[in-house]
Amino acid sequence: MIDLVMVGIGTGNPEHLTLQAVRELNAAELILIPRKGANKAELAELRRAICARVLTNAATRIVEFDMPVRDSTDPDYRSGVARWHDAVARAWADAIRANLPRGGTVALLVWGDPALYDSTLRIAERLRPAPATVRSIPGIMSLNMLAAAHTIALNDIGAPFMVTTGRQLREHGWPPGTDTVVVMLDGDCSFQHIPTEGVTIHWGAYVGMPEQILLCGPLAQTGPRIIATRAEARARHGWIMDIYLLRRHVGSMTEEDDNA
Amino acid sequence: MIDLVMVGIGTGNPEHLTLQAVRELNAAELILIPRKGANKAELAELRRAICARVLTNAATRIVEFDMPVRDSTDPDYRSGVARWHDAVARAWADAIRANLPRGGTVALLVWGDPALYDSTLRIAERLRPAPATVRSIPGIMSLNMLAAAHTIALNDIGAPFMVTTGRQLREHGWPPGTDTVVVMLDGDCSFQHIPTEGVTIHWGAYVGMPEQILLCGPLAQTGPRIIATRAEARARHGWIMDIYLLRRHVGSMTEEDDNA
Repeated sequence: MIDLVMVGIGTGNPEHLTLQAVRELNAAELILIPRKGANKAELAELRRAICARVLTNAATRIVEFDMPVRDSTDPDYRSGVARWHDAVARAWADAIRANLPRGGTVALLVWGDPALYDSTLRIAERLRPAPATVRSIPGIMSLNMLAAAHTIALNDIGAPFMVTTGRQLREHGWPPGTDTVVVMLDGDCSFQHIPTEGVTIHWGAYVGMPEQILLCGPLAQTGPRIIATRAEARARHGWIMDIYLLRRHVGSMTEEDDNA
Repeated sequence: MIDLVMVGIGTGNPEHLTLQAVRELNAAELILIPRKGANKAELAELRRAICARVLTNAATRIVEFDMPVRDSTDPDYRSGVARWHDAVARAWADAIRANLPRGGTVALLVWGDPALYDSTLRIAERLRPAPATVRSIPGIMSLNMLAAAHTIALNDIGAPFMVTTGRQLREHGWPPGTDTVVVMLDGDCSFQHIPTEGVTIHWGAYVGMPEQILLCGPLAQTGPRIIATRAEARARHGWIMDIYLLRRHVGSMTEEDDNA
């Protein structure tokens, strides 16, 4: 039988690991590390470096496996994702069977936190045979690191904020009911598609890593700088992970707040 | 001159501290711990226990100060909060002047993450003389820990979620534009004021601590159990910190997703 533990490792800074994450990794018999091809080799290397830094248990084995690639041409997004999750679960099962035939504890390193825009939990539900236990260890999310890097709060006092994706912002515009939006999974600088009036942006790429880039200011002026900076950084590294917070300063909402 | 560092410490589990948080606390000359009166003595004790566990630098001094109390009868919420922030900044300044007259690095331990529904950053802006630097170290938030404890994701695939307060939910109802809402700062079980049809709740109190209580299920049936459990736990401990996630399963939204 397998005990599966998904360990949030933060945004690439090995110091983002919690004491709990370090303990859990050292308690595992097997740590699975996905290989995602040459252009994401840097990310696999970061996982290896994190393990090298915190592992003190000589009995813990680190095993790499080739991550199946999602068919992004599938016209049905949801069923395409489901098929890909099945393929990843089979890759896990093969690696576990080959390396831990008698069962034990298997750890997976998850960027950020397993709870946020991450498929590890959903893949775990598809693993056969089903694990005896599935646990999740919280980690520093990119939205925490974005706020910390800019030394800002995510929320205005007592006010809500929305966490959403680039696709949602592009297709549905500024979400209703909030003046603060955190946008993730945006490969297309979707802030280009919303009105810039009264909006400030706090943007970060590679947040928490040595390569970290930060830009902030009024969206109208800062947006074009972000587009150029992002394209240059992506070309240089071969990959990019970025995130941003948009805040709208609207007269009517402020008055509403004052009456609260 | 003062360098101020706000260190996110997670939700009360000393193992939530990141390696970075441990390093930053040990690099500080002075750590300020607020005393908030007898009914929150357990929380000050937790801060002390965390320091005792991770501090290895004998030169780091821990100093406690009495936290000013906010005048909750102030009819103007915003100016009342501003006056309270000023009073806290003066209490910090007094403690720093008395204990670090030649300047140095001052650390503050912040529950969760300094970026989320926390006033530490805003108080830091009011500190006089102004610190030379203000930095923020990200921490595990209660919403991460809630999701990890229930082994759930915060978001549906590609979908947004709103983080809001009990007051907002009570006064404005279910926020528009999302089927997932995380509610914080809710002393009144505000989920009572929304329609329960098709809504599930994942609730947690003292998440991450030994006292952790978790309940989940359809809101209609689970809501009353949460109200009773919460009242009993609060009476027993003298304080409570809780958080919950509401998810709505609506036919029309699902169809919309299928077309995405």
